[in-house]
Amino acid sequence: MDIIVLRPEAAEERISIIVKKLEGWGLKANISKGTERTIIGVIGDTSVVSEEEEDALKVMEGVENVLRILKPYKLASREFRKDNTEIKVGDQIIGGNKIQVMAGPCAVEGREGLLAVAQKVKDAGANFLRAGAFKPRTSPYSFQGLGEEGLKYLAEAREKTGLLVVTEIMDARDIDVIVKYTDIIQIGARNMQNFRLLLEVGAAKKPVLLKRGLSSTIKEWLMSAEYIMSRGNHQVMFCERGIRTFETATRNTLDLSAVPLLKKLSHLPVVVDPSHGVGKWDMVSPMAKAAVAAGADALMIEVHSNPEEALSDGEQSLRPDYFKQLMSELRPIAAAIGRDI
Amino acid sequence: MDIIVLRPEAAEERISIIVKKLEGWGLKANISKGTERTIIGVIGDTSVVSEEEEDALKVMEGVENVLRILKPYKLASREFRKDNTEIKVGDQIIGGNKIQVMAGPCAVEGREGLLAVAQKVKDAGANFLRAGAFKPRTSPYSFQGLGEEGLKYLAEAREKTGLLVVTEIMDARDIDVIVKYTDIIQIGARNMQNFRLLLEVGAAKKPVLLKRGLSSTIKEWLMSAEYIMSRGNHQVMFCERGIRTFETATRNTLDLSAVPLLKKLSHLPVVVDPSHGVGKWDMVSPMAKAAVAAGADALMIEVHSNPEEALSDGEQSLRPDYFKQLMSELRPIAAAIGRDI
Amino acid sequence: MDIIVLRPEAAEERISIIVKKLEGWGLKANISKGTERTIIGVIGDTSVVSEEEEDALKVMEGVENVLRILKPYKLASREFRKDNTEIKVGDQIIGGNKIQVMAGPCAVEGREGLLAVAQKVKDAGANFLRAGAFKPRTSPYSFQGLGEEGLKYLAEAREKTGLLVVTEIMDARDIDVIVKYTDIIQIGARNMQNFRLLLEVGAAKKPVLLKRGLSSTIKEWLMSAEYIMSRGNHQVMFCERGIRTFETATRNTLDLSAVPLLKKLSHLPVVVDPSHGVGKWDMVSPMAKAAVAAGADALMIEVHSNPEEALSDGEQSLRPDYFKQLMSELRPIAAAIGRDI
Amino acid sequence: MDIIVLRPEAAEERISIIVKKLEGWGLKANISKGTERTIIGVIGDTSVVSEEEEDALKVMEGVENVLRILKPYKLASREFRKDNTEIKVGDQIIGGNKIQVMAGPCAVEGREGLLAVAQKVKDAGANFLRAGAFKPRTSPYSFQGLGEEGLKYLAEAREKTGLLVVTEIMDARDIDVIVKYTDIIQIGARNMQNFRLLLEVGAAKKPVLLKRGLSSTIKEWLMSAEYIMSRGNHQVMFCERGIRTFETATRNTLDLSAVPLLKKLSHLPVVVDPSHGVGKWDMVSPMAKAAVAAGADALMIEVHSNPEEALSDGEQSLRPDYFKQLMSELRPIAAAIGRDI
Repeated sequence: MDIIVLRPEAAEERISIIVKKLEGWGLKANISKGTERTIIGVIGDTSVVSEEEEDALKVMEGVENVLRILKPYKLASREFRKDNTEIKVGDQIIGGNKIQVMAGPCAVEGREGLLAVAQKVKDAGANFLRAGAFKPRTSPYSFQGLGEEGLKYLAEAREKTGLLVVTEIMDARDIDVIVKYTDIIQIGARNMQNFRLLLEVGAAKKPVLLKRGLSSTIKEWLMSAEYIMSRGNHQVMFCERGIRTFETATRNTLDLSAVPLLKKLSHLPVVVDPSHGVGKWDMVSPMAKAAVAAGADALMIEVHSNPEEALSDGEQSLRPDYFKQLMSELRPIAAAIGRDI
Repeated sequence: MDIIVLRPEAAEERISIIVKKLEGWGLKANISKGTERTIIGVIGDTSVVSEEEEDALKVMEGVENVLRILKPYKLASREFRKDNTEIKVGDQIIGGNKIQVMAGPCAVEGREGLLAVAQKVKDAGANFLRAGAFKPRTSPYSFQGLGEEGLKYLAEAREKTGLLVVTEIMDARDIDVIVKYTDIIQIGARNMQNFRLLLEVGAAKKPVLLKRGLSSTIKEWLMSAEYIMSRGNHQVMFCERGIRTFETATRNTLDLSAVPLLKKLSHLPVVVDPSHGVGKWDMVSPMAKAAVAAGADALMIEVHSNPEEALSDGEQSLRPDYFKQLMSELRPIAAAIGRDI
Repeated sequence: MDIIVLRPEAAEERISIIVKKLEGWGLKANISKGTERTIIGVIGDTSVVSEEEEDALKVMEGVENVLRILKPYKLASREFRKDNTEIKVGDQIIGGNKIQVMAGPCAVEGREGLLAVAQKVKDAGANFLRAGAFKPRTSPYSFQGLGEEGLKYLAEAREKTGLLVVTEIMDARDIDVIVKYTDIIQIGARNMQNFRLLLEVGAAKKPVLLKRGLSSTIKEWLMSAEYIMSRGNHQVMFCERGIRTFETATRNTLDLSAVPLLKKLSHLPVVVDPSHGVGKWDMVSPMAKAAVAAGADALMIEVHSNPEEALSDGEQSLRPDYFKQLMSELRPIAAAIGRDI
Repeated sequence: MDIIVLRPEAAEERISIIVKKLEGWGLKANISKGTERTIIGVIGDTSVVSEEEEDALKVMEGVENVLRILKPYKLASREFRKDNTEIKVGDQIIGGNKIQVMAGPCAVEGREGLLAVAQKVKDAGANFLRAGAFKPRTSPYSFQGLGEEGLKYLAEAREKTGLLVVTEIMDARDIDVIVKYTDIIQIGARNMQNFRLLLEVGAAKKPVLLKRGLSSTIKEWLMSAEYIMSRGNHQVMFCERGIRTFETATRNTLDLSAVPLLKKLSHLPVVVDPSHGVGKWDMVSPMAKAAVAAGADALMIEVHSNPEEALSDGEQSLRPDYFKQLMSELRPIAAAIGRDI
C-alpha cells in the first residue's frame, strides 16, 4: 500500500490518468479529497510495482509526492520471521542467550604474533578470532595485508586454539580462498554497498558479518542484508562499528541505538565493534559494557600483544591483560540482563 | 605552546617577522628546519595571545598553518581538577557513587497531572523531577509552556514529594523567576551557545545542567561549560541528549561515547537523556541501561501518565509502570559496575 | 490532510477509536484497507489539530505512523504569496532584480578602521555595511565586541558613506538599542532557534536577516521565519552561511542548493555568506560567483583592511582591493543571468 | 616533518626512548620544552616512516598526540605538478579552457531510447554521453542494468553521434569489457574506497572519472586518486556529486566548495554532477550554473527523453528540450569567467 499526494492544482483529468496507470498494474485507487490536497491510497499488492516505476510516478504532472508505507526489505524483516535468528558457527551460537566475543588484531601481521595473541584471547574467554588478511587501507603506501598467507596462519590458529575465525573479504575474486579458510565472512564498512560482492557472499554457504557503512542508514543496511539473503544465504549478522558525523574527538560515533532498533525491525543477530567505533583503546571498555547492556549479541574487539608495534590500528587495540580484565567486568553486566558471556 | 607551520617557499625574512611578532608577546621561537617545511615551536605562556591574534597569524604571508596544542578550556578540564566534581543538590549528590534519576513529563501541562506523575516517579525511586515551564518549540503555533504558573506547580510537587526540581531557562530575562523555583537550571540544546545566557547562569548560585547542542562538538561543549565557570559558578553538569546525524530512523543519534570522553577530559558530572536521544519510548530502556554501563552519573527520562494525551513529546515518554520496571532493571546493572541507583 | 497508517494487526475496534477521535476534532476519516496495511486519510481542516495532538496519535495502540502532508509553515510559504517579496531598506531593494552586496569586517574593532573600510566597500560598489558590535564567541576569553559604542560607529559610517547597516542581535534585552542604530537586524546561526529572540524581532519594525543554524534543516529554517512573521514582521530574508558536516577541510559546507530550494518553497529573499561558508579568504571569490549564478538576491562578504590584525575571523576576510576585483568579476556573471549587481 | 606532542608528565627517559626510535629511522629530533608541554619536531625525510609506524607512536607511553604536517598524497598534489592536468579524450580535452558536458540517461534501458537521447544531447552541444550498463542499486529487486548489451548500445551511439562515452565499472572482473567499450571509466560514489578496484583501473590505459564517496572527505578522495595514480594511470578527474548530511530536503548536499578546494590542492580536473547532487530536476539548472561559476571543468547531467518512464532516477533527469535550454543559459556564464562551453 502506497500513497500518492497530488498538487493542490491537479485537475480531475490528471487523477484519471494516474488511476488508469494503477489499474494497468492490477491495483485499485482509493481517492480522498481533502480541503487542500487530494490523496490516492493504492490498494492491492504493490510489490508488483518496482521502485523505478514508483519513482517515475513522482515526476508525473500533478503529483506532489509518493509515499511508501511498506518496508522495501522482506527476508530481513521481523515480520518475515518473528523469532530471533540463531546462527550456528562450529559449536557456537550467535544470536542466542550467550553473548559471543570476537577478539584479535586488526591485521594478521605474522605467524608467531597471531598464534600468541590467539591463545591469549582464548584464555580470556573469547570463542572467535578476528584478524584481516586483506586490509582496506586509505593510502596505497600502507600495509595491505598478507593475503592467503595470512589466511593460513588464521587456520593454524583455529586448529591450535579451537577459536573460530572471522576475516574480511575485499574482492569478489577472493571468495573461494576466503571460504576455504574462514568460519564467518566479514563484509567491511566500505563494502556494505558493494552489491556485486554482496551477491557473491549471498551464494556462499558461510555466515556473513555485515558491517555498517560509514554513512549508511539503518534502512540501507537492512537492504544490504536483503541482497545477501535474496541469494539464499540467510546466515547474516549486523555489526555496528560507528558512523561518520561532525564529531572528530572520536574516530567514529558508535551508534548503540542501532542495537535495539535492529532488534525491533529484524530477526538477525547484532554485533558491536567498539574498537572501530571510538578508535581509542581507553574508551573501548566502557563502550563494550554499554553495548552488552543495550542488547548486543556479540562484541568484536581489537587485541594486540604490542599495540606500539601494530601495523594497523594500534591506537585502538587493547593489550591482552587489559582485554582479560574487560572480559571479567563484562560478566556481571551480562548476568544483570540475564545473559551469559 | 603552539606550532606555526611555514610554507615551503617561505623566505628567511618572513621567519624573522614572525619571530619578532612572537617576541613582542614575550614569547620565544624554536625553529626546526625540515627537508620540506620549517616549523616554529612557540615557547612561553601562550595564553597571553588571544584566539584572534592566533587566527591572524594564519593569514600572514608565508604561514601555512597554526596548530594549537593546549586545550582552550581550563576550569572545566581534568588537568585543572584531578578529582571528580560532586554537586550537592538538596540532600542529594550528582557525580558521586549513586547514579541519580531525573524523571517527569516533557512539559508542565497542569497541576493535577504533574503532582500525580511526580508521586509515581518518586515511588519508583527517582530523586529529581524534570519538566519544562518554558518550552522551546519549532513551531510558533505549538504549546509554549505555562511559564511562571508551571514553575509554581513544580515547587508544589517538590514540597509534596521531596523531589528536587530541574527545569529549563530559555531567556536571560527569566533568570530570577527560574532561580526562585528550581534546584537545577537546565540549559537546553538550542541554547548551548547562547553565550549571554551562559554568562547569566554563570552568575547564579544554582547548579546548571548543560545539554549538548544538536551539532556541537565535545570541545565546544566544554567551552560552554567554561563560559559558565568563568563567571564563578563551578556547579556544572553535562547532559548528552543525542546529536544530529544523517540517520533519521531515530530522532537523534545518542552519542554514548561522550560519557567516557568527558570523564577523561573533564572533572564534571555527566548526565544522559535517552528519551530525547532516541525519541521512541520503546528504545529508551535499552539505551538507559547502556548509559549506566558506560558510566553516566545520572539519567534524565521522560515519564508521562498518559503519553497519548501529552502536549509535547508523547512519543518518547514512558508510562509510570514501565518506568518503574526500568528502575528495577537498572539496579543490577548499576551494581555490576559497583554503583547504586 | 494527514494520513494515519495502522499496524497490520490493528483490530477494527482500534480503528473506531481513532475515527471517533478525529470526529471529535470535526474531521472525517477515509479508510483504505490494503492487503497489508489499513490507512486512514484525514479529511477536513487539520490545522485545528496541534502538532502535539498529532504526535500523541503516534503512540495510540494500533498506530504505526502518522504522516503530515501539509507544510507546517504558512506565511513564509510560496503558496501564501506567489510573488517574490521585495524588502525596501532605505533607498535599496533586497529581492528585486539588483543583487545587493553587504560587506565589512566581522566585528567593529574601532572607529577609524570601520570608517576606512566602509568607504572602501562603498567605493567598490556595496550598498550595505556589515559588522558586529555584539559578537558570539566560542571562548569566554575572546573579544566579545564593543557593544553600543560599536553601534555608534556603525551609525557614523552610515552617515558618512550612505551605506545601510546590518548588525547582529544576540540578546532580547538589546532589541531597543539595536533597532535604534541598524537598518537590518541580523539573527546569527546560533540563535536561529532562540525562539524568544525571534518573537522579539517579530515585533520590531525592521527587516530581519535570518542566518541558517549550523545544523538546521530547510524546514526548521522556514519555521523560524514563520515565528518572526507570526508576530507581524514580514520583512524577513534568509542567509545561507554553511552547514556543519563531516568535512573539516572547509570551515562549514556552503549549501548553495538552499538558494533554489528556498526560492521554490518561499517568497522571501535569499542572501548567501560565502565568507563563513568556506572560512578561507582565497575560496570566497569562486563561491560568491557560484552564489550569484545559483540565484542569490544578495551576498554578505567579510572585508577587512588588514586581515592579519583582525580581532575576529581574519582568516576569511578579503582585503579591500581584492574585494574590489571580486565586484568587477561578479558583474558579468550577474549580467549573464539578467540581473544587476 | 611531523610533530610529536608529549604529555605534561612525560619523563626525560620517555623523551630519550622516542628520540632513539626516530634515530633508528634515520631522523633527527628537535626538542622544544614549553611551560606546559614538550614538543618534538621530527627532522628528515619522514616518508620513510609508514602511517602504521606513526600511529604506533601515538600509543607510546608519554605521547599525547602525533601531528602530520605533510600531505599523505603526492602524485595528486599541486606541489607535484604546478600546471593543471589536461586529459585528452578522443578529440576533446577535459581540464582545458572549454567546459565539457557529459549528458545522458542514468541507465542504458534499451537501444532505441539511448540512440534517440544521444542524438538530442549531441545537438544541444554535449560532447560526452553518460549512461550506466552496470547499475549499483540499493535494492536487490531493482533493475540492475543491461550489462555488456548496454555497453554495445553505448558504442553504437558513439559511432552514430561522435559522442565520447562515460560509463561505470562496479566490479574488477568487468575491467576488460568496460575498457573495450568506453572512453572514460567511471568509479561510482559507493566504490570510491573499493581499493582493489582502484588498483585495477590504475593499471588500465583509460581516463578515470572518480566520484566522491557519500561521506568522503576531500583528503580521502585525494588518497583514492593517489591509489589510481600510484599504478601509473595519471588520467584521473574528480566528480563532486553531493555528500550525505543531515538535510533530507535534497537527495544529497552538493558541495561546490570542493571545486576551488581541489583546484588549490591538486592539478587534476574537476567535474560536477548536479543531478545526483540535488536529486530534483527543477534544481539541476541553477546548480549547473553555480558549478560553472565556481570553476568546474565539466558537468555531468542526467537527460532522459521521458523521465516518467525512466527505470532509474527519473526524478532528477531533465527532458531534452529543457537540457537544450540549460546549455544556452550556461554559455553566457562560461563567457563571463572567460571560458567556452
